Amino acid sequence: DHRLKLFTLNSNPGLAEEIARFIGVDLGKCSVSRFSDGEVQINIEESIRAATFFVIQSTSSPVNENYMELLIMIDALKRASARTINIVMPYYGYARQDRKARAREPITAKLIANLLETAGATRMITLDLHAPQIQGFFDIPIDHLMGVPILADYFERKKLEDIVVVSPDHGGVTRTRKMAEQLKAPIAIIDKRRPKPNVAEVMNIIGNVEGRTAIIIDDIIDTAGTVAMAADALIENGAKEVYACCTHPVLSGPAIERIEKSHIKELVVTNSIALPAEKKTDKIRQLSVAPLLAEAIVRVFEHKSVSALF
Amino acid sequence: DHRLKLFTLNSNPGLAEEIARFIGVDLGKCSVSRFSDGEVQINIEESIRAATFFVIQSTSSPVNENYMELLIMIDALKRASARTINIVMPYYGYARQDRKARAREPITAKLIANLLETAGATRMITLDLHAPQIQGFFDIPIDHLMGVPILADYFERKKLEDIVVVSPDHGGVTRTRKMAEQLKAPIAIIDKRRPKPNVAEVMNIIGNVEGRTAIIIDDIIDTAGTVAMAADALIENGAKEVYACCTHPVLSGPAIERIEKSHIKELVVTNSIALPAEKKTDKIRQLSVAPLLAEAIVRVFEHKSVSALF
Ligand SMILES: Nc1ncnc2c1ncn2[C@@H]1O[C@H](COP(=O)(O)O)[C@@H](O)[C@H]1O
Ligand SMILES: Nc1ncnc2c1ncn2[C@@H]1O[C@H](COP(=O)(O)O)[C@@H](O)[C@H]1O
Repeated sequence: DHRLKLFTLNSNPGLAEEIARFIGVDLGKCSVSRFSDGEVQINIEESIRAATFFVIQSTSSPVNENYMELLIMIDALKRASARTINIVMPYYGYARQDRKARAREPITAKLIANLLETAGATRMITLDLHAPQIQGFFDIPIDHLMGVPILADYFERKKLEDIVVVSPDHGGVTRTRKMAEQLKAPIAIIDKRRPKPNVAEVMNIIGNVEGRTAIIIDDIIDTAGTVAMAADALIENGAKEVYACCTHPVLSGPAIERIEKSHIKELVVTNSIALPAEKKTDKIRQLSVAPLLAEAIVRVFEHKSVSALF
Repeated sequence: DHRLKLFTLNSNPGLAEEIARFIGVDLGKCSVSRFSDGEVQINIEESIRAATFFVIQSTSSPVNENYMELLIMIDALKRASARTINIVMPYYGYARQDRKARAREPITAKLIANLLETAGATRMITLDLHAPQIQGFFDIPIDHLMGVPILADYFERKKLEDIVVVSPDHGGVTRTRKMAEQLKAPIAIIDKRRPKPNVAEVMNIIGNVEGRTAIIIDDIIDTAGTVAMAADALIENGAKEVYACCTHPVLSGPAIERIEKSHIKELVVTNSIALPAEKKTDKIRQLSVAPLLAEAIVRVFEHKSVSALF
């Protein structure tokens, strides 16, 4: 009677429902609410028998609330004698604070890894970490899935011609090459330079984009400043049209306005982060990572290798 | 050149300023803000030389934001080679989740202790923990200060006559007796009973309150339901007038409205939790714990015993 038990917290219940449907199980009964003073109150409303637990939580905004919910849920499961507590974190918040860029900075991505392990997490399934090195911040096993094939499939089905896949910076070249291979297209790289301190950045394009359909790919689009400027630069350099895509649509602050005003024809993202209604504009197309995560969960449950999914 | 360094985070900067003035130091230069997506951004703007660090943060509402700020600040100090990181936490959030009252509940107060130690805290100064047992959740030294003397001093100076000090429940009797000793007054206890499930609680008073000035004392006043009902019961049982006091003014939800409408003549609290303007009504009197905390900080810095302050 060993079962797979799936719980969701509050960041992305829609994705969790979808994952549960793909696996063919019901979500565990659990209420995650707040006391009057804002403290997290968790009630797990079913017994914790011999089972393998999966807790689904993206740590997107409100990031601190979402992390505390997750830590407290792990504590509750651990104290109810759960032996394995697998976290399914489609988006890993604080991933950009992964190194000391300046003196006296925290490395919050590592702090978070320590906190999750201290609470009692035994494994984590995640998607497109901002830096793959974050896997090494953990002592527990991490299954690191990729969003590129899902995004590339979508563009393949569109049957676009004369594609060039564009990396908005030097850090994203591996991801860009992966997509370019699947789309059998060349790549280009945007080389941002600041000629002098306090002077606007110049966007220099390495590679040929003239007359081509450019697809910019990134892991995270946050305030959308970089991607909007990259689109401008591509059009100025003769690109026919510009698409953009990313795994994690953080889309904070001025992001939506910038995208609407930009030369971007369509922005393709995944549902690793739930989008509120006001961010679901006609320009934004959201693809589901539920089949991928469901497959990974079942493989972990059945002690099969997840690396076949990479 | 070994110095005492005081930093404040965002929950109670007014109290921190006051503590710094009492000690005679400036607060450390540090900005604690948010990135566009809500992630905590910390910049410690001065060098971390040989110093003993104290970080002041109450983990009142927004509790999850306040805890994450604290954990990230501890991480930043630790990575900047701070050897001792003392937390000054006038109010310890999640203290009421200190045991499993029902199956499958978390023990968040213990989780928090583990998280603070994992981040790198080396000592904590705190005030009126909801349960003193929480000290034992930590492996690092905890200095546990009491608010009673500050509250009792205030009532002493008022020169009230025929006082009875009232505990709103059986859990608070030790605290009530402490105040009663200082005020040389008798005590009474409110014995809440629910005659049948789903029937309103009955407030039964143990002790004589007839013709007396009642002072209700508690550690936390949250939604103020209990204290307002207790005041009603005291008046019904012949008390002449009713004061109430507590260390930690959580005052969430309907608290202010209930207090305004109640028989409570004055509510005396401390500044362990900052009160926003809309909670500073004429009925509420806020006393400062800054001298007490300043004294404790200096004693810890000088390796003197803090227990003399208990
Ligand atoms: N939530 C955030 N929003 C914007 N910038 C961030 C955030 N977290 C960290 N950073 C900064 O982003 C930089 C790292 O981003 P990257 O160069 O893309 O890896 C560092 O300078 C961080 O201080
Ligand atoms: N933030 C909170 N607000 C209200 N009740 C809480 C809170 N945290 C925990 N509790 C509950 O309060 C009870 C413990 O309070 P006490 O009996 O006063 O120690 C437990 O049943 C907890 O589930």
